[in-house]
Amino acid sequence: MQSDPVVTNPQFYRVIFENERVRVLEYLDRPGDETTQHRHPDSVMFTLTAFTRRLSTGGRSIDVDLPEGVARWLPAQEHSGANIGETATHAIFVELKEPAPAPLVPGSPGYLGPLPD
Amino acid sequence: MQSDPVVTNPQFYRVIFENERVRVLEYLDRPGDETTQHRHPDSVMFTLTAFTRRLSTGGRSIDVDLPEGVARWLPAQEHSGANIGETATHAIFVELKEPAPAPLVPGSPGYLGPLPD
Repeated sequence: MQSDPVVTNPQFYRVIFENERVRVLEYLDRPGDETTQHRHPDSVMFTLTAFTRRLSTGGRSIDVDLPEGVARWLPAQEHSGANIGETATHAIFVELKEPAPAPLVPGSPGYLGPLPD
Repeated sequence: MQSDPVVTNPQFYRVIFENERVRVLEYLDRPGDETTQHRHPDSVMFTLTAFTRRLSTGGRSIDVDLPEGVARWLPAQEHSGANIGETATHAIFVELKEPAPAPLVPGSPGYLGPLPD
């Protein structure tokens, strides 16, 4: 899986737990850091710091400005991320291994990431 | 759902995110605090503080001593919890709404909670 972020960007992502149903990643970077393109499955992200990031995919991008201590839904997507703020990004991703029973609609509660055209 | 911890123990549990696939709870208490009996679905717990707790169900109990910043699997279970340490318990629960495709075996990686007889 070449697009797995722990393979493409091991300096930022590490696996802190895994079983049959989930995998949990810890992400940590510094201001100015950028990831390469990678893919997330449907995931819950929980923020351990406040941060500002630019998520980009296929020429589209979206800036995400989040406080510490919030949970957001990251629907399965490919993107790269850049820390464009003044603080470290420290976050936990809980990846769901099972496919969604029905597709989630962009714009549904907590949807995070560039919207399709 | 009378055994939902946000119903039975709203002083400790609150919903910080919910969609079709997951619900995310924040738990916060102080040393000496105790919950009543409640039920968790299959969940990932992530610790925001180090803490020591006693989980009890049906006359069995297990003491859990965890550092800050770790993820553990909480298989669906009913229990009560008591903060038997010297620190607040602050943790995030990511509850999975879908049933497990196959039952998880007590004792599998990260299994947290009293073991069945």
